[in-house]
Amino acid sequence: MSLHHCRVVLVQPTIAGNIGATARVMRNMGLTNLVLVSPQASLDDRQTRQLATHGEEILDRARVVDRLSDAVADCALVLGTSARRGGLLRRQSVVAPAEIMPRLVAELRAGQSAALVFGTEAHGLTDEEVTRCHFLITIPADDSYPVLNLAQAVAICLYELRKGWEVWEADDPGQPSCERRPVAAFADQDRMFAQLEQALRAIHFLYGPKAESLMHALRHLLGRAGLTPMEVDVLSGLARQIRWYADHNKQLQALSENQP
Amino acid sequence: MSLHHCRVVLVQPTIAGNIGATARVMRNMGLTNLVLVSPQASLDDRQTRQLATHGEEILDRARVVDRLSDAVADCALVLGTSARRGGLLRRQSVVAPAEIMPRLVAELRAGQSAALVFGTEAHGLTDEEVTRCHFLITIPADDSYPVLNLAQAVAICLYELRKGWEVWEADDPGQPSCERRPVAAFADQDRMFAQLEQALRAIHFLYGPKAESLMHALRHLLGRAGLTPMEVDVLSGLARQIRWYADHNKQLQALSENQP
Repeated sequence: MSLHHCRVVLVQPTIAGNIGATARVMRNMGLTNLVLVSPQASLDDRQTRQLATHGEEILDRARVVDRLSDAVADCALVLGTSARRGGLLRRQSVVAPAEIMPRLVAELRAGQSAALVFGTEAHGLTDEEVTRCHFLITIPADDSYPVLNLAQAVAICLYELRKGWEVWEADDPGQPSCERRPVAAFADQDRMFAQLEQALRAIHFLYGPKAESLMHALRHLLGRAGLTPMEVDVLSGLARQIRWYADHNKQLQALSENQP
Repeated sequence: MSLHHCRVVLVQPTIAGNIGATARVMRNMGLTNLVLVSPQASLDDRQTRQLATHGEEILDRARVVDRLSDAVADCALVLGTSARRGGLLRRQSVVAPAEIMPRLVAELRAGQSAALVFGTEAHGLTDEEVTRCHFLITIPADDSYPVLNLAQAVAICLYELRKGWEVWEADDPGQPSCERRPVAAFADQDRMFAQLEQALRAIHFLYGPKAESLMHALRHLLGRAGLTPMEVDVLSGLARQIRWYADHNKQLQALSENQP
């Protein structure tokens, strides 16, 4: 039940100063948990350390992992960030920082882990990485050049998180949190989505060039709901049942074609 | 009557990268007017230019003056920034960024000029400089280390200004309102849920006494997501496809049973 349960994930950061400045603003805002996914700049670079002012301990305790899914496996809520506004399907679940923070604070308050995910400097999160996120945060900016510096984007998101956190603390001074709907772990959700995707491909709901964006839309709308472990089981069961029908259909089809 | 009438004033900036990153985030947020008071780092430094990405024009047009009073002489509203919380007199007019932005927007809207003033990296604004400011903005941060990096503090203040600006534009009927995710009409959602239920009964995912509560769970989790019209169409399509498989399966089954 603290801001420490919100981790900051930088995917392939390439500029040392951005890692350092991220550590500093995490310290400013009361966060401690930094994860780097395949970093292209070092935690021990002189620039990293120089810009971390008072955030050195956060750098010392930072985790380095190979893939985004390793960084967020146990998270109930994964928020990506993106300046890109293109892509019809992607646009649906784009939220402003201030809009989503109450939800993030509620998860943290319920003892859940959550992650704020920032893409690489040059081109942000890939479509594949975006698909892994429950929501996509876009910082309101000028259309003529909406791409923020990485460390400044981190600062704005953590500032909004801190604001949301302080609103909650002011409303509820030190009270234990009320009962909350538990959210399934990211890894369990991910496994279910993989089963669902296979099933929907088997019945040719997903096929051709649009398959990816359709699956993306389904992931997003289900992710937005904040699935409980039981709901993840229900959807797994649904995927199995659809799959069974598709397989059975194939067998019957083969059988009927072999008949004279 | 535009964001251009809000200038950003950096007092004795000493780190070139901070000047560059300030220009970039000004460009991001739609501001153009940068003033440096006795800068200790150069507008033409390699680091300044490197971090300004797309904000070069702002650097080219930046003014350099000797004293803060020269920078803000024609301003109707001067907002200083400070992480320091001490000082009796100073404390009186300390505000959070979100608190003061409606006021700043109102001044700009009325055609007035205004300034956001940021002190030097090492120790912020002097008492003398603070006295020149109408209000002093403090960004909420952790007591253990509330001093933000200069360029990140600029980013947060300009982000709040932009938000305040967009709220005003949205409220003003003469302006196009900001983009929002539309939610599908209840009746359309209901029609889709009926199709989905039929399809799931057809593949025997729903059957027996538990069918009703399972369908209820699905409705509930999808409803929670706040489905868009497009998502309702996607789910309708999915229901049709599942239904097709179930019907086709039945036909094939009947066919195979009729075979000797």
